[in-house]
Formats: sequence, C-alpha cells, structure tokens
Amino acid sequence: MNYTDRIKFVPTEMKKEKPLTDQLEFGKTFTDHMFMMDYDQEKGWHDPKIVPYQPLIIDPAAMVYHYGQTVFEGLKAYLTEDNRVLLFRPEKNMTRMNSSNERLCIPPIDEELVLQALKKLIAIDRDWIPASEGTSLYIRPFVIATEPYLGVAPSKKYKFMIILSPVGSYYKEGIHPVKILVENEYVRAVSGGTGTVKTAGNYAASLKAQELATSKGYSQVLWLDGLHRKYIEEVGSMNIFFKIKGEVITPALNGSILEGVTRNSILMLLNHWGVPVTERKLSIDEVYQAAIDGELEEAFGTGTAAVISPVGALFMNEQEILINNGRTGELSKKLYDTLTGIQLGTQPDPFNWMVEVQS
Amino acid sequence: MNYTDRIKFVPTEMKKEKPLTDQLEFGKTFTDHMFMMDYDQEKGWHDPKIVPYQPLIIDPAAMVYHYGQTVFEGLKAYLTEDNRVLLFRPEKNMTRMNSSNERLCIPPIDEELVLQALKKLIAIDRDWIPASEGTSLYIRPFVIATEPYLGVAPSKKYKFMIILSPVGSYYKEGIHPVKILVENEYVRAVSGGTGTVKTAGNYAASLKAQELATSKGYSQVLWLDGLHRKYIEEVGSMNIFFKIKGEVITPALNGSILEGVTRNSILMLLNHWGVPVTERKLSIDEVYQAAIDGELEEAFGTGTAAVISPVGALFMNEQEILINNGRTGELSKKLYDTLTGIQLGTQPDPFNWMVEVQS
Ligand SMILES: Cc1ncc(COP(=O)(O)O)c(C=O)c1O
Ligand SMILES: Cc1ncc(COP(=O)(O)O)c(C=O)c1O
Repeated sequence: MNYTDRIKFVPTEMKKEKPLTDQLEFGKTFTDHMFMMDYDQEKGWHDPKIVPYQPLIIDPAAMVYHYGQTVFEGLKAYLTEDNRVLLFRPEKNMTRMNSSNERLCIPPIDEELVLQALKKLIAIDRDWIPASEGTSLYIRPFVIATEPYLGVAPSKKYKFMIILSPVGSYYKEGIHPVKILVENEYVRAVSGGTGTVKTAGNYAASLKAQELATSKGYSQVLWLDGLHRKYIEEVGSMNIFFKIKGEVITPALNGSILEGVTRNSILMLLNHWGVPVTERKLSIDEVYQAAIDGELEEAFGTGTAAVISPVGALFMNEQEILINNGRTGELSKKLYDTLTGIQLGTQPDPFNWMVEVQS
Repeated sequence: MNYTDRIKFVPTEMKKEKPLTDQLEFGKTFTDHMFMMDYDQEKGWHDPKIVPYQPLIIDPAAMVYHYGQTVFEGLKAYLTEDNRVLLFRPEKNMTRMNSSNERLCIPPIDEELVLQALKKLIAIDRDWIPASEGTSLYIRPFVIATEPYLGVAPSKKYKFMIILSPVGSYYKEGIHPVKILVENEYVRAVSGGTGTVKTAGNYAASLKAQELATSKGYSQVLWLDGLHRKYIEEVGSMNIFFKIKGEVITPALNGSILEGVTRNSILMLLNHWGVPVTERKLSIDEVYQAAIDGELEEAFGTGTAAVISPVGALFMNEQEILINNGRTGELSKKLYDTLTGIQLGTQPDPFNWMVEVQS
C-alpha cells in the first residue's frame, strides 16, 4: 500500500544551521522537520503529516506527564560512500514498537505507514545526514498519551512522532573498551514488568544507578536479575555478550531483557561464521570464576548507538576484573567492523538487512 | 519564610464555566489557574508563578517524553460547612514528593514554597471547590524533565506544576464494596525498583493488568510481590488492610510498596482507638485460609481518592472469596466516617492533621 502521497508535507520556512560534523553530540541537534500523527477513538490514527520541527502544545493534565504511557524506538540511517541512504533492519523496530504498544495498552500503529513516513521524512531532511566516518542520522519514533485525564486508565488520545538527530561517532578516537559496574542495589526490570519493551519508565528507573556508577568512574551499569540478583541481564542501553573458552554466551530472553535488534544481528552473524554461540542463563559468579580461571576472553555490549562496545573491566563487590587486559578483543573488533561495514554498504550484506531510502 | 508575595500572579481573562457538582468526574475538569516554576542549572528552581490554566509548550525531544523522568503527588482540599478550606496533611505529600525526586534524580523542591504556592493557588481558585457531600478539590503537583536531549541521563531542566481538579463523590450511592482481582501474571514493582515512589512509569506498567481485570468485571487488581508472587503488596492506587480474627494487618513497607498518607493515618487512628494493628508480611494464602476458616472479617483499601474502599470480594485462581458477605464492614465504615469527618471539620482532629487555607 502506498501511503507516501497521503502524508501531508508542510515545509519549513526557515532552515536551521547544521552543526559541524566533528562537533556532533548524541541526541542534542534535531533536523528541520518531524513526522506526526494523531489518534482518537473515532478516527483511529489519522492526519499523518511532516511539519517543521517545533514544540508540542499539550495540556498539563495529559496522561504522559502523569502516568508515563509512552513507547519509543531508536534506529539509524547511514550515508554510503556512493551517496545512498541506508536503514538497518527498520522493520524490526516497527515490530518491536508494536509489541511495546501492546504491553502499554497503546493502539497498534500501521508498520508499513510508519516505515514509509520515516523514509519520506529522511528523504526531505537528507542533507542533515552527516558524511564522515562513524556518523549517522539517529531516528526516534515515539508515542505519547495526550488525553487530559488524571484517572489511571489507558489514554483515549495519542500522538505518534518521528524526530531525527544527526549523531557523531560514538568512539571519537576509534573503538575502545568501557568499564562497567555490576549493579547490586537497584533493579531495572523484573519478569511481569516492562523490561522487554521500550517505554519511558524503564529508563527513569535506571537513572539513579547510572548516576552512582558515573560518579565512581564507570560508564555504564550491568543489571542483574531482580529476583536472585545473580543472573546477568543487560547494560544501560545495550545487550551483553561474553566469550568464555571460545564460546560466546548472551543471556537468554527471559521476560525482563529488551530484545535488541543488534543482539539479534550479532547472533545471526556468529552463527553464519560458525562461532559457537549460546543464549542461556548466565550468572555473574560464572563470569567472575571464568575471569579468575583465565577463561574469560572477551565481553562486549551491543546496541544501536555504539554498535559494539567492548567491555574492558567489570567492577563488583569492591573488586575489578580486567577483560582481555582492558583491550578490545579480536572477535569484538571483527563484529564491529563487519556490522558497520554492512551498515555503510562497504561489506556484503548476506542477510539483506539494509533498506535503501530513495530520494 | 514568606514566599507568597514572591509568587507572580497573572489572572485569567476568561473564567471557565464550572461543572455542575453532581456531574463531576474524577480528574477531567481543571480550574482557571495553575502554578508553575522552572529549574535550570544556573538559577535552580526559579520564576514561581500562578498563571491561567493553559497548554504547555515543550520540545518533542524533552526527556519526559522519552525517559519518563517525572514525579507527582495527589492530595485534596475540602470545603467545610462553615466555609473554611482545609488540606489533609499536605506536608506529608511534600516530603514524599522530595523522596520521589531523590530516587528519580530530580533536584529537591523547597517544601515550604510549594505549600505556600498551593495555598495561594487554592485561595485564588477557591470558587471551584465543590460544596456537596463527598466532593473535594483534587490537587496534583508534578515535575517533568524538559531538557531536549535523547541521552539517558538526568535532565538539566525541569518544570514543576500544580493543577487543580474539582472531583465528585467517589461513591455516588454511598460507600460500597469493590471486587478485586489478585494479579498473578503482571508485577507492579520490585525492591530496588521505583515502587516506593510516585513516578509515571509505575502507573504505565500497571495499565495492562488493570485493563484485563476490568474486562473480567473487577474494579482493581491486588498486586503480589514480584519475587515470590505470594506476598500482598497493594491495590492500584490504594494500600490494603485485612481484619483477621480481630487483628488489623497491612503489608509492611518492604521497598516496593508506596507509603500512602491515608495508610499512615489509618495506622495512627487504629492505634489511637486501641485496635490491634500490625504491619507485616502477609501472604495471599494466609488471607485465603483465613477466609476458608471464617476468620477473615474485613478488607479495605486506603487512598486519597476513595479514602476507604471496602473490599467485598477477592478473585484468584478461578476462585472468588466473599468478604463479610460482600458488605461494608463495621470497622471500614467507622474509619471512613471518622476520616471524612476529620477532613470536613465535622469531627475532632486529634492529631492536628488539617491545615487551613486562608483566603
Ligand atoms: C534497555 C536496552 N537494551 C538493549 C538495547 C539495544 O537494542 P538495539 O540493539 O535494538 O538498539 C537498547 C537500546 O535500544 C536498550 O534501550
Ligand atoms: C500506588 C499507590 N498506592 C497507594 C496509594 C495511596 O496513597 P495516599 O493514601 O497517599 O493517597 C496511592 C495513591 O496515592 C498510589 O498511587
């Protein structure tokens, strides 16, 4: 179905100045336009339009401000050397958005419409996609509940939007390992809660632990399960992998971990390469023991922002363990190079992941 | 310290029509004015003002929309027969708001300033306080993160606001028992999470279970603990009490239950009356066993909205138990009458709970 022509377009009358590519920061600059669409009970999702980037005008009683009924997604568009614009597995984000919507009692959104809207918006703001290595255009679709009502119940009105932000290289001086703190006081999510979906409250709940970790010099926290405080879940906004005695292990999806698109892609790549890889319960003790026994070879996080983030050290119970002497492991590097190569169109794309945006 | 004179006041130019008292619904109508105050890193909380009730103009990248960094409170003002305006223990809400802020990495707010702002706002919109029995003015202070930034980190900018909503009698035909479903799939909160504070994400997470309960004919869900799915926590927006063999029992504050102001007040009243009352772990099995043994005498929820809400039936594992034959218990009734009497100034206020708003 072709929705593109049904999406109204109101061009901006005043184009903003674009930031210098080497001064880009994650999520601080936004492009000239945004996509928006409204929902109410009579009309369903209606009035899709691309308009100048502008503030929202919303009643202070809108439910998003009080009960956090909201869902978001995050993906990227890349500019290739031959000047094509590629999206990385965008349909995965659309599907995940709708499973988040289901959990949050938000009406489902036509995935094909959103994908076409996304492409149209990117084509319009194409000049904003930065060109130098490691940069990209971060895409943030999100839904918020806008009914002005203080009762705790699903909202009867919503706004769906897409905003775009040109982002710099995650690694300013090339890929380098991060130090991570194992969190044993705060909990991110628990089975039966909202950990498997991308909704605002999960991130609000994580701020305190993140703040404490930062103050101790660690860049992220590693979450343990809320039940036993023992099994590894994930990192701030990444899934996590460990390589122990030649085998790559990542925590199995257990009802409280977010299923990352990058995680899924890494699993596919490793299988494709014939590297032994397992999704299973993995305790922090097992990882520490492997480190003591000299069998912990690598650890890395996976996510849209950093792609692959090698973990150089873990800190728990006043004890820090170094991983691969604090250096980027061979497999982490190979995965990073392959994935970014596929995303930038410089490497073959064996699974047909990339989707081109026509201008 | 007198802040009142420092709060700027911009009166509305167009007073809204007030709803008829018998048509008031909870949280749908708002008064003519609202209080607002901004935070940034240079000025701290600044520019407190009372302005006409109006939509907020906020960047779509504001952190509240994406990462749910927000806190709220809920309390009420009552109009007495001799035309005084009384607040119920407002300082408890101010303290709780700041502990919520602490957990959510939101800068603390001067409690005395907020209390004075609240009184000034209520005095201005005093005509909105409905007069007939059971009605009141619901007060919603809240904080939202407004920095336009997609990084997961505490916001550097916030808005604090107070909005007011005249609310009707919770019980249209007098106090009557509700039927409650014991939730055993979804979890509201877990120790280490945000269950002890009033933040948006907790309520977003609860919508799904609430929706399912409503579709089965139950008005609320009873949450069990996220660890064992066994111990009773609380109801949608109420704490819960059971009377078993003459003893009143409520779940002890365990790191995942919200400490209700009403809960605390009920504990004080029961102690004052010499009724045996215990805060401890209480399993759902114990309650069911007490029901089977004929020892479960009453159950009731406590919260600002309903004050006391008698529980007439509990449903779990396809089995419904009736409590006190589905009728309001004697103690529930006495607590309801006493508390509403204190709030309306028709009964003595032994603990000096009520705070008058001077006009
Ligand atoms: C909590 C959490 N885990 C994992 C991820 C990684 O997911 P993806 O690979 O889809 O970016 C993200 C980021 O999106 C996240 O927010
Ligand atoms: C989750 C939750 N529990 C309990 C309560 C009862 O608290 P209070 O008595 O302060 O209204 C509320 C309502 O405020 C609530 O939202």
